[in-house]
Amino acid sequence: MLSKGNCIIGQSGGPTVAINASLSGVLQGVLESDAYDSVYGMINGIEGLLQGKYLNLSEQFNTSEELDKLAITPAMYLGSCRFKLPDYKVAPEIYEILFNFFISNNITTVFYIGGNDSMDTVVKLSSYAKVKDLSINIIGIPKTIDNDLPMTDHTPGFGSAAKFVATTMLEIAHDTYIYNIPSVTIVEIMGRNAGWLTAASALARTSYSNAPDLIYLPEASFSMDAFVSDIKRLQKERKNIIVAVSEGIKDEEGNYISATSTTVDAFGHKQLCGAGKTLENYLKEQIGCKVRSIELNVLQRSAGHIASKTDIDESVMIGKAAVKAALAGKTAEMLCYNRMSNDPYYVDIVSHAIEDIANKEKVIPRHWINEQGNDVTEELITYMRPLIEGETFIGYANGLPIYCDITHLHKKHFFNEK
Amino acid sequence: MLSKGNCIIGQSGGPTVAINASLSGVLQGVLESDAYDSVYGMINGIEGLLQGKYLNLSEQFNTSEELDKLAITPAMYLGSCRFKLPDYKVAPEIYEILFNFFISNNITTVFYIGGNDSMDTVVKLSSYAKVKDLSINIIGIPKTIDNDLPMTDHTPGFGSAAKFVATTMLEIAHDTYIYNIPSVTIVEIMGRNAGWLTAASALARTSYSNAPDLIYLPEASFSMDAFVSDIKRLQKERKNIIVAVSEGIKDEEGNYISATSTTVDAFGHKQLCGAGKTLENYLKEQIGCKVRSIELNVLQRSAGHIASKTDIDESVMIGKAAVKAALAGKTAEMLCYNRMSNDPYYVDIVSHAIEDIANKEKVIPRHWINEQGNDVTEELITYMRPLIEGETFIGYANGLPIYCDITHLHKKHFFNEK
Repeated sequence: MLSKGNCIIGQSGGPTVAINASLSGVLQGVLESDAYDSVYGMINGIEGLLQGKYLNLSEQFNTSEELDKLAITPAMYLGSCRFKLPDYKVAPEIYEILFNFFISNNITTVFYIGGNDSMDTVVKLSSYAKVKDLSINIIGIPKTIDNDLPMTDHTPGFGSAAKFVATTMLEIAHDTYIYNIPSVTIVEIMGRNAGWLTAASALARTSYSNAPDLIYLPEASFSMDAFVSDIKRLQKERKNIIVAVSEGIKDEEGNYISATSTTVDAFGHKQLCGAGKTLENYLKEQIGCKVRSIELNVLQRSAGHIASKTDIDESVMIGKAAVKAALAGKTAEMLCYNRMSNDPYYVDIVSHAIEDIANKEKVIPRHWINEQGNDVTEELITYMRPLIEGETFIGYANGLPIYCDITHLHKKHFFNEK
Repeated sequence: MLSKGNCIIGQSGGPTVAINASLSGVLQGVLESDAYDSVYGMINGIEGLLQGKYLNLSEQFNTSEELDKLAITPAMYLGSCRFKLPDYKVAPEIYEILFNFFISNNITTVFYIGGNDSMDTVVKLSSYAKVKDLSINIIGIPKTIDNDLPMTDHTPGFGSAAKFVATTMLEIAHDTYIYNIPSVTIVEIMGRNAGWLTAASALARTSYSNAPDLIYLPEASFSMDAFVSDIKRLQKERKNIIVAVSEGIKDEEGNYISATSTTVDAFGHKQLCGAGKTLENYLKEQIGCKVRSIELNVLQRSAGHIASKTDIDESVMIGKAAVKAALAGKTAEMLCYNRMSNDPYYVDIVSHAIEDIANKEKVIPRHWINEQGNDVTEELITYMRPLIEGETFIGYANGLPIYCDITHLHKKHFFNEK
């Protein structure tokens, strides 16, 4: 039988609830096309592969039940790394290890699923393959809850995180409204430089609830004075005020607000406060009412039980499209969503040169934020609304969602095997 | 037409996702029995009623669609209060206001939904009625995420909070396992004196995930030294350790651990740390790996989208049973779950004298905690497992759960009307 060659997949960067949907999509695309003999998975991305850690995915995922369960499992089935490949001129031995592995295992395509930093790995591997004239295709598949990758309408994983943020914001509003005393609730949401996920809190507004009343993003400079005056102005009309704030809000000079406030703990050591806590502490000094802050923390990137169906379905689609792109001979490209229509919502999947994407950040355009810098515009909401539409069917057992076992990541017997 | 009399319902204490299910249950019970002309609702509990704030519920909830939507709406449709009625000998005028209202509105039954403190209100109102020989029945309906009410097998609202905690713990485990570096993740869960909700994190364990690795509860005294040695011991076998800790853990002398660690903020003011943050800061000093803490915060009592079907169904049932109890002439009693069988799980609803319940707390029996005080026993898990079973059907619109509008709580035109 003629060998068709093999492919390998890696995941890297921060987790999302949709990154395994893209992994499932690649596996489904391979099954449908029958274009590869085996699909391997790097354990802990390119860093793990350098240590000889990988597994055979084709053997484990060969039924639609297993592939569907993988698609709704949060975080990363293959584990992650935060590793920046050095330039091949500086460390050629690293590239020799990797490409010797690819060649000796008859690997003709490398799929790498990740965000801005991970796309740097795609750039470097494909540049090396080009220089050495090796016919190995390197394909990038996007993922990030931050929605900050250029060239793509939005990123896989963002819609589900946005649905969690919007749902939770609505539920926090319910929790807040029940007391007959004035209060300010500050909700801190992830995003160091791009405020997309914090902006998604605006999707929580319904015909009856206007929470969040204020939204502060890294893209508009933040002033404590303006913040306090925003609160005082709103308190004249409303009893309970809810604020959405990005962890990455900055002052006029570009300094993170969170970095301006440190606390000294009981042992005399300085601890950094988050943006929410910093605002809470400051506001308590300024106004005489109940102030609390809530950090959504890792829940916003791991809450698979409230994933967006649109996001999960598209993330599977983009994985399948990656297989087609590889079979069409593409390399050094990343798959992107291209929005064809907003109503009805419909995206096409295209691919773009990786150089235009790696190490670049797409932030919210200033005209999608109001002039005062304390809210988003209707245009942003129209763009974002379709991304949280639909609920994913998840099986439950013993009252818990049924996800894939990911503890192979911590088991030695999977390592160093073919 | 002969007047059948009216009834009134109040809600008080902290919110849960099931307290509106009990409100819906009372309304359904009234509709089915046709025993009252109108059902009124106090706005912000007994405190709001003293200010003349109430509304007519019968007019608003007269279809099964409306009643079903109410049953899955988190927090409190009627708003809450934290108000302790003074003794009637000390402040007879307060009781005169309330009972004049009841009598002039032909109210023959008062239903009050709440926890330990709220049951104190039931005790005081019913004692006053007895002393004054007024034929007004006062019925208590339990609710609390803390599960700390005596005489009832468990409390409405607990199962849903437990399902959120267990699901989130499993998802945090997925988020944690992906990195190939040692880490400790501390998850702080609500419960000042009773550790039931923190113990529910043990329900997150599956055939593949043993998170949480350690569980610390207020019922077993906590020692920082034992904590650090537990962590160091486990680190020899596992890379990622996940700890569930109750906000109310105490040292041997009964002092809250959270109160032993204060931080000084940038303005020189002392701020209290939570238990999770306190453990995080201490552990960072003791071991050289990544340590982070996550506070589940109000999400554990407001996440209606992951409510337990068992909890919601039972909470409706207990509301209906309260109507039957009132019609049977009971007063000064609280409805309770009585577990008849664990497999198959089945509860009966009975009622108990309120004096045995009000102002009392039910904590975890010490023999349901292991000897070392860092985990729960299989018996506790067997008791708790049925309470998180089943998923509630929630409608979605625009990607968000469809809940009842609760903003009437902040609208003046509902107040002072009949």
